[in-house]
Amino acid sequence: MSKLIVKKFGGTSVANTERIEAVADIVEQSINEGNQVTVVLSAMDNNTDKLISLAKEIDPEPDLREYDALVSTGEQVSVALLAMSLLRRGIKGKSYTAYQLGIKTNSSHSQARILDVDVDKITKEIQGGVVPVITGFQGMNNVGDITTLGRGGSDTTGVALAVALKADECQIYTDVDGVFTTDPRIYDKAKLLKNISFEEMLELSSAGAKVLQLRAVEYASKFNLPVRVLSSFKDGEGTLVQEEKNIMEKPIVSGISSIDTEAKLTIRGVPDVPGVAAKILGPISDAGIDVDVIVQNISADNTTDFTFTVDNSNSSKAEEILKETSNSLGGGSIEMDDDIAKISIVGRGMRANAGVASKMFQALADNEINISMITTSEIKISVVIKKAEMQEAIKALHDAFDLDKELDS
Amino acid sequence: MSKLIVKKFGGTSVANTERIEAVADIVEQSINEGNQVTVVLSAMDNNTDKLISLAKEIDPEPDLREYDALVSTGEQVSVALLAMSLLRRGIKGKSYTAYQLGIKTNSSHSQARILDVDVDKITKEIQGGVVPVITGFQGMNNVGDITTLGRGGSDTTGVALAVALKADECQIYTDVDGVFTTDPRIYDKAKLLKNISFEEMLELSSAGAKVLQLRAVEYASKFNLPVRVLSSFKDGEGTLVQEEKNIMEKPIVSGISSIDTEAKLTIRGVPDVPGVAAKILGPISDAGIDVDVIVQNISADNTTDFTFTVDNSNSSKAEEILKETSNSLGGGSIEMDDDIAKISIVGRGMRANAGVASKMFQALADNEINISMITTSEIKISVVIKKAEMQEAIKALHDAFDLDKELDS
Repeated sequence: MSKLIVKKFGGTSVANTERIEAVADIVEQSINEGNQVTVVLSAMDNNTDKLISLAKEIDPEPDLREYDALVSTGEQVSVALLAMSLLRRGIKGKSYTAYQLGIKTNSSHSQARILDVDVDKITKEIQGGVVPVITGFQGMNNVGDITTLGRGGSDTTGVALAVALKADECQIYTDVDGVFTTDPRIYDKAKLLKNISFEEMLELSSAGAKVLQLRAVEYASKFNLPVRVLSSFKDGEGTLVQEEKNIMEKPIVSGISSIDTEAKLTIRGVPDVPGVAAKILGPISDAGIDVDVIVQNISADNTTDFTFTVDNSNSSKAEEILKETSNSLGGGSIEMDDDIAKISIVGRGMRANAGVASKMFQALADNEINISMITTSEIKISVVIKKAEMQEAIKALHDAFDLDKELDS
Repeated sequence: MSKLIVKKFGGTSVANTERIEAVADIVEQSINEGNQVTVVLSAMDNNTDKLISLAKEIDPEPDLREYDALVSTGEQVSVALLAMSLLRRGIKGKSYTAYQLGIKTNSSHSQARILDVDVDKITKEIQGGVVPVITGFQGMNNVGDITTLGRGGSDTTGVALAVALKADECQIYTDVDGVFTTDPRIYDKAKLLKNISFEEMLELSSAGAKVLQLRAVEYASKFNLPVRVLSSFKDGEGTLVQEEKNIMEKPIVSGISSIDTEAKLTIRGVPDVPGVAAKILGPISDAGIDVDVIVQNISADNTTDFTFTVDNSNSSKAEEILKETSNSLGGGSIEMDDDIAKISIVGRGMRANAGVASKMFQALADNEINISMITTSEIKISVVIKKAEMQEAIKALHDAFDLDKELDS
């Protein structure tokens, strides 16, 4: 059946002209299968790094408007090269910058958000048999400056275009085969997931699985656009991320994600009064530091121990801020520990199944892995453990929840 | 006195970030002298070559629309980097692509011509104390595609912007000090010219002096815009190219140019009938080959010998075409000779001075240099000689016309 598909290829997928030819092969095959295809590209791997290092030679903290004007050239190079390759094959490829299409963003240079995508021009091109090849990651603001979208921007461009074009599917090509039950480099029994819900993907992404960017998943979820994650390096169906109701089977646990680049900070003996959490975390977030896991426990003596995790790169700064907070609140000692890992199990079947948490804790206990923090959401349970035990914990949980077995759906 | 100046810097002047800082120095100094400055940049040297070689990897003859989209990124990189450098110095630099400014061209991809420059946006910026930094060499056509202007395009952008802005002067920065009486690498007595007329510059450019591109000089001449050629590598006033009436002194010979990359083709014994020149040169120009010097002589027997020169790269093709023409016209033998050089003397004072040609021929005869072709225009005399005698001829003519002496104007 003929489909309208937006295919987005990342930096490793267009790293050199050989890879660009491979992308053209994929596009050609999809067209031969009768599909209408629109392509979104990232910059060639390394190219962006080269541009950034030029900028840093001029100014370690370059002006952001000019930074965006500079790095946006990267995608323009990719799209022109792919269009050339398609044209040589007799396919009507045609490159467009986001600027040429008027993809509107706000003015937050280097981390702009897409406001509006007018697809009249592209729709006309598609109807005329053209394969539009469009720069990801960028747009223009209301005064006509070039903007870039920041991390994960190309994924977001792909999804936003697919939504605006009312495409059947947005296909995100990467250098991995799709979404796995856990990182195959950590546990070789990891299994490729055929389906996953938006919600699970969001929880897995935020828990450390880097295969799809959070913003793109949020966008797709909001507009209910199916997103397929697949490899540009080898054939395969990849993983389809879609609305939960469209997926028949409901595995209790779909996947396990892990992250070992965080540090845990604890402030002890804080007076347990209303608003104390805000008083502790306010100055942290004011400093631009993202907080991940948060746990608060009331002690017997009406004081509280407050613990949270931040990215390693921010741990010293957070510790400093926490010391000041402790002084002003009349709190106790500060502890910092970066020898930690966070393991999360995610699954939409959890809602209907009691005992998932205790099964998780039991599996860890059986392997003598001590848990130092626990948080839960509707479809996710996260634990913080010692970094050295991360791999063992993942294997134990993967086995305990039978993630290497085929689902009988 | 405060002036509005457009400064254009070529590829060697922005070859790396060190050179870009040097350009920023020049801009800063001009601003400190009270001038309003607009900058036009070429792509960083090598960058364009890298982009072209990527394109050739995909397709030896890439689609021209995509080729333009690709190579136009080169200038965008330069302008963003210079704007960053200016901003770091506290100067309000702001990069613009020709696309952002809507510099309109026709649709001849890779050799487009500028049709219209709307400077409202730039004028407003200049009035607000901004230094606009604009991509040379490019524009957009009427359907919103990116175009490039081809050889000398950045010079043309500089001049066209200066004309549209009603600037006082367009300054073209290169890696030479200005326009010399002859190429200093050929004769070390060559002297920098302070002034030269548009007409002389056109004759010198077309005769082989590569310091300014023909198109830019034509454009400047048409709109009577003074153009200054100067070095971005060292201080100096360079050479001012302007209307003849604004220059006091009228040297008989201003400069000598030479070119030794042409071949001479002769077709003998062609019937001397009307239209024979068109019959000979028509097929040559139809093949896209530019003809330079043309000489026709009538023989005693009512046939004619017809001789012309073309660039070496086209000589074999031209010879082949000429053989076919000779067959159909009933002409005689074809001769081809690439062991030649063309020497031209150019000077606006020639008009009022008889005997310039005979002085030139005498100087060459005194050095036993044989002349095989002669052509003349109002302010230029060109001779074709043996390639090996080029340097000697230049020195002889430079001495004969006292070009190493100061003018007493």
